[in-house]
Amino acid sequence: MSHFLLEKHRHLPAYVPGDHEEGEGFIRLNTNESPYPPSPGVRDAVAGEIGRLNYYNDPDCTALRQALSGLYSLAPDQVIAGNGSDEVLYLAFMAFADETHPIVLPDITYGYYDLFAAALGIPLVRKPLDEDFSIDYRDYLNVGQTVLFPNPNAPTGRALPLWQIGEIAKSNPENVVIVDEAYVDFGGETCLPMTRQYPNLLVVRTFSKSRSLAGARLGYAMAQSELIAALETVRNAVNLYSVSRMAQAAGVAAIAENDYYMANCRKIIEARDYTTRMLRAQGFEVLPSLGNFVFAKPRAMSAGVLAERLRERGILVRHWDKERIGDYLRITIGTMQEMQALEAAIEMIFGRA
Amino acid sequence: MSHFLLEKHRHLPAYVPGDHEEGEGFIRLNTNESPYPPSPGVRDAVAGEIGRLNYYNDPDCTALRQALSGLYSLAPDQVIAGNGSDEVLYLAFMAFADETHPIVLPDITYGYYDLFAAALGIPLVRKPLDEDFSIDYRDYLNVGQTVLFPNPNAPTGRALPLWQIGEIAKSNPENVVIVDEAYVDFGGETCLPMTRQYPNLLVVRTFSKSRSLAGARLGYAMAQSELIAALETVRNAVNLYSVSRMAQAAGVAAIAENDYYMANCRKIIEARDYTTRMLRAQGFEVLPSLGNFVFAKPRAMSAGVLAERLRERGILVRHWDKERIGDYLRITIGTMQEMQALEAAIEMIFGRA
Repeated sequence: MSHFLLEKHRHLPAYVPGDHEEGEGFIRLNTNESPYPPSPGVRDAVAGEIGRLNYYNDPDCTALRQALSGLYSLAPDQVIAGNGSDEVLYLAFMAFADETHPIVLPDITYGYYDLFAAALGIPLVRKPLDEDFSIDYRDYLNVGQTVLFPNPNAPTGRALPLWQIGEIAKSNPENVVIVDEAYVDFGGETCLPMTRQYPNLLVVRTFSKSRSLAGARLGYAMAQSELIAALETVRNAVNLYSVSRMAQAAGVAAIAENDYYMANCRKIIEARDYTTRMLRAQGFEVLPSLGNFVFAKPRAMSAGVLAERLRERGILVRHWDKERIGDYLRITIGTMQEMQALEAAIEMIFGRA
Repeated sequence: MSHFLLEKHRHLPAYVPGDHEEGEGFIRLNTNESPYPPSPGVRDAVAGEIGRLNYYNDPDCTALRQALSGLYSLAPDQVIAGNGSDEVLYLAFMAFADETHPIVLPDITYGYYDLFAAALGIPLVRKPLDEDFSIDYRDYLNVGQTVLFPNPNAPTGRALPLWQIGEIAKSNPENVVIVDEAYVDFGGETCLPMTRQYPNLLVVRTFSKSRSLAGARLGYAMAQSELIAALETVRNAVNLYSVSRMAQAAGVAAIAENDYYMANCRKIIEARDYTTRMLRAQGFEVLPSLGNFVFAKPRAMSAGVLAERLRERGILVRHWDKERIGDYLRITIGTMQEMQALEAAIEMIFGRA
């Protein structure tokens, strides 16, 4: 490693993304993308921006924040946009935590949180998930630190009931409680209405999953306006122009065609239910998921070997060779056809077809 | 300000962007954008990505780095891409500087450097420009800290000769020298070949100015591979997916059509020469500029008043009400027609038409 890099950064962990094998005919059930393309309005809106790309984007994301605030019945200053929810989360880490202000979060969760914390020197206090991989909300009561968890959690798909989130927010009034709702549109229940009651509650969302815009990079967060203003202060100093013209236009158009995306979510929920039943019939242990994925443990074969066998048959799923979750696969829910292809492949691999 | 925001961030300075008055018929000579739209290949390339936006972008920006390294005769691992050069610069600040590792830079320069430093708690050592607004390279010799300057500098348009950059790099072998070449394509000379000799030299570039992609957010940096690897380590922990599918595709296409952009740069240089002569004829003092802008001091009227009068006539220029530069306007070079419109407006305002 370059000796120019500050000592403290030389051992930063690396984020290991899911394989990107696009264009080689793989069925991609490994990165929690939507199998459905963006809606026609998104196509038109992005195309309409191309001829104007020589002009800077709106740093305030005015139209986008207006559209989001309209959809969720908020004021525009209760919404902040970012270059993916990753950027919004990074800004939240920066705004509310540092070397002497840790973040409390589940031990098994979205992998990028670790990296933000490492980059910013923020200590993490990890609360182990229960035996059944659920978050025990009591671990987060009265902790007096910033709290963070996805709801539903990834890669488990399990969700907390809203009253437990309320208890967490209520018991940590001097600290921000960040709820990452990346997967909430797949049957979860949003805690957004509770932001009215709790000035410390920050709800983070993405257009990557339910709104088919993973490759456009667009995320946002919602809270009381004072909390959003705190994030805007940091955003202003880090990268005020981070949401491109194309991403802003795509977001506005996607909100205008919300019905299309909500219909896709329903299809994914159906395919998830089908997949859950199918995998159980194939002998998997499957956690009840509210995400666009399932977390499943094969019994006939190790998870790592099965992932490899599926890959040989053109299907990508996600496996982490890590403690507690090494026996599981995280399988993104695609179209019904893709899940049937998965079924056929599993039957072949298990020698039952 | 929200009491949830960490104390240290509560007084972060605000970046004040140039006015965004698009669509109201203004001639925009205030944000150093290109007056020319992106090339046809960019249009096709971006449009071609829209239907695939449900899939994540390539975190490694493989095709883009390949294209850039081809254009500049480097290896792909000597190039890093980012969400605008602002992101690349932010990552460089983070990688090489912190509370105890200051950055040495000119006192009059690109305003965002201040904000990155404030956000990251990095002390800045500001070296005053000379009386004629040029950088005195001797101020940066043997400083034993990270050095940063744009070349040409903004908002002055003045450039350092390459041998002076070499002396700076040579005399600070244990520290990174960041040369922000945002404006180098408008007649400046790049120090890129000197990266072969100096492992501490980092050259930062943007697609926003000479390549008509301000609204797409795309920047990059080039250096020896070890230095780039250091930046990649930090990028990985901050936002690995920050360059969208659309921005990557736009960049690749823009490089393939490099001739179009270089021809635009020549037109802008011609219009700059015309504008410099015109402003001098109107009694302005004009610094010799190698950027797509001129820094000019009106004598018949205060700069602030003139900016206001021009605005009333539909022309936006940039004025900072600040020490040393408050008497100047930064005027972006647009098309020849736009500069003639500026000329006509100035003549009207000065009562000579």
